[in-house]
Amino acid sequence: MLEGVIISVDVMGGDDAPGIVIAGCERFLKTDGKSRAARFLLHGDQAAIEKLLKKAPLTKARSEIVHSDKAVAMDEKPGQALRRGKGSSMWNSIAAVKAGEARVAISAGNTGALMAMSKLQLRMKEGVQRPAIAGVWPRAGGQCIVLDIGANIDCDETQLTEFAVLGEAYYRALYKKSSPSVGLLNVGTEEEKGTATIKAAHKRFQELDFGLNYAGYVEGNDISTGTVDVIVTDGFTGNIALKTAEGTGRFIGDLVKNALDGNVFGKLAKLINAVAFSRLKARIDPRNFNGGAFLGLNGVVVKSHGGTDAKGYANAINVAMSLAESDFNAEIEKTLTRLHDAELDIESAAEV
Amino acid sequence: MLEGVIISVDVMGGDDAPGIVIAGCERFLKTDGKSRAARFLLHGDQAAIEKLLKKAPLTKARSEIVHSDKAVAMDEKPGQALRRGKGSSMWNSIAAVKAGEARVAISAGNTGALMAMSKLQLRMKEGVQRPAIAGVWPRAGGQCIVLDIGANIDCDETQLTEFAVLGEAYYRALYKKSSPSVGLLNVGTEEEKGTATIKAAHKRFQELDFGLNYAGYVEGNDISTGTVDVIVTDGFTGNIALKTAEGTGRFIGDLVKNALDGNVFGKLAKLINAVAFSRLKARIDPRNFNGGAFLGLNGVVVKSHGGTDAKGYANAINVAMSLAESDFNAEIEKTLTRLHDAELDIESAAEV
Repeated sequence: MLEGVIISVDVMGGDDAPGIVIAGCERFLKTDGKSRAARFLLHGDQAAIEKLLKKAPLTKARSEIVHSDKAVAMDEKPGQALRRGKGSSMWNSIAAVKAGEARVAISAGNTGALMAMSKLQLRMKEGVQRPAIAGVWPRAGGQCIVLDIGANIDCDETQLTEFAVLGEAYYRALYKKSSPSVGLLNVGTEEEKGTATIKAAHKRFQELDFGLNYAGYVEGNDISTGTVDVIVTDGFTGNIALKTAEGTGRFIGDLVKNALDGNVFGKLAKLINAVAFSRLKARIDPRNFNGGAFLGLNGVVVKSHGGTDAKGYANAINVAMSLAESDFNAEIEKTLTRLHDAELDIESAAEV
Repeated sequence: MLEGVIISVDVMGGDDAPGIVIAGCERFLKTDGKSRAARFLLHGDQAAIEKLLKKAPLTKARSEIVHSDKAVAMDEKPGQALRRGKGSSMWNSIAAVKAGEARVAISAGNTGALMAMSKLQLRMKEGVQRPAIAGVWPRAGGQCIVLDIGANIDCDETQLTEFAVLGEAYYRALYKKSSPSVGLLNVGTEEEKGTATIKAAHKRFQELDFGLNYAGYVEGNDISTGTVDVIVTDGFTGNIALKTAEGTGRFIGDLVKNALDGNVFGKLAKLINAVAFSRLKARIDPRNFNGGAFLGLNGVVVKSHGGTDAKGYANAINVAMSLAESDFNAEIEKTLTRLHDAELDIESAAEV
């Protein structure tokens, strides 16, 4: 039996699984996880995992393998994965969280299947209607959290309010800040701007007194400039904003590269300023922001990008570990209770 | 009476109007407008304009002043501006297009007021339900068009189809490409992805045979990578994507600047590679993409960023001039007719 903070790993999920998954565990234990009590439950093909563990001695010493014959394909539809995927490495990695054998599950596999299986097995936390996927975003002076980035295409104002609770607790768990600020993503900061849903959510944030540090509307450019810590939006808008930012980053990164590699002077420039450039690269390297958390379930599941490498996977494990080490779920429950009490206060006042 | 292609200018609109507006006209005539037949109708305070024209000889030689006592404030609400703004420089600049005295109007003033006045005076083109604001976006290998970027918060599938017609004709007018490709912004490229509206629009694009070069769904990162020429989306998503990209650009730009300015070697690096860096700066300078066109009205109105400078304003004039010189409105009408014929074909087929 493993001792410590146990992370349940879907070793077979991901474009380059299982290789990069085990390499990611090893890298985590060498870097961010060096002096932390992480232990792994490795779900997948036993023979393949044993072979990979020969080159990953730190992981081997802290792991237990749980064999599974099946793996969920990257392109399987969620419904199909649910029907066929019971007993797969993905299914089993979540089941271990449900059974209390692990604090958190992690997978770089099929997002839709992972969300469907997580919802079915872990169920929604009481008082939460829908789960959200929260992403970490680079910004001036650090990171911010954006949610939802893809779990819910349509959201109403109640769900957006719940996302704020989830995101705020998540930010506290990751960055140990006591009262992170929360903004609502909109097309302007004036009161009359936005869709009916956004305006209704804004009103709820203003009226419901549940201890949220609500900063009001924020715009797309505020995501990178770092105006607030947590940005609340629906999954359609969040997903498009995230991918637009990634695309812009890559586009400008290529322009900078071309400007510097265009001639011998540019290459020299990069050479003599190597430290500053490697710092710059790290600040916008998507691998350093890998790991989206599924929030709102009875248990935490972290999704890594399917196409990441060992470095990116190690970062997603770091996110999972930070959540596992924190009182994240207890914190959410406290704020949810305050939110629902505040809702009742408003309702009673309305009835009087 | 002026001769040539007449542009109607709201000289009083913009954070730094009227100064940067006249400076922008002058700059345009010195650069992109050098050998083109642009003439200006300058709407605003006669005395102020005459004073500014003393330092803008090229503009003076090609302009006529139309005095107005009033100007619309940058923070006036659209309804208020409509009630109070008749006879203002903004109102008059649009009225000149309506009266056939100018081919296009341009303003850096209050966006909401400009849109409201444009709709009221010019009216929607027959067969178009709502106007859209189209923005030009830098991408690998050139530019693309994104619309709507803020005129319509909610859009249905019919409107999204019309935006494609407007954007496609706009792209042809600006870049002289015969059959630009059109993509629909979504959270994935699989058929089952997206909101009900997005899926309905996708179905319309596939079923209606009106000669559109429809490339299917595109994602946020495709905006910068240059997969398609025209990207169709609702005004809420488009506005957030645009501002997110601007924020990301500024954030990374600052990181690059810090990496290079951090020490003497970095400064040297920038110096020895000055040409490549100035090219890079130009590629992502928002001033070089200034000028959003209001499409779908009986007449063209171009909106400049309120906070731009002479360089940015000159670029917006260039957009206005390119539209004025083209058969933009005739082209839209042709495609609209084909669209509505295709709709009738589908309806008749359904009735049989």
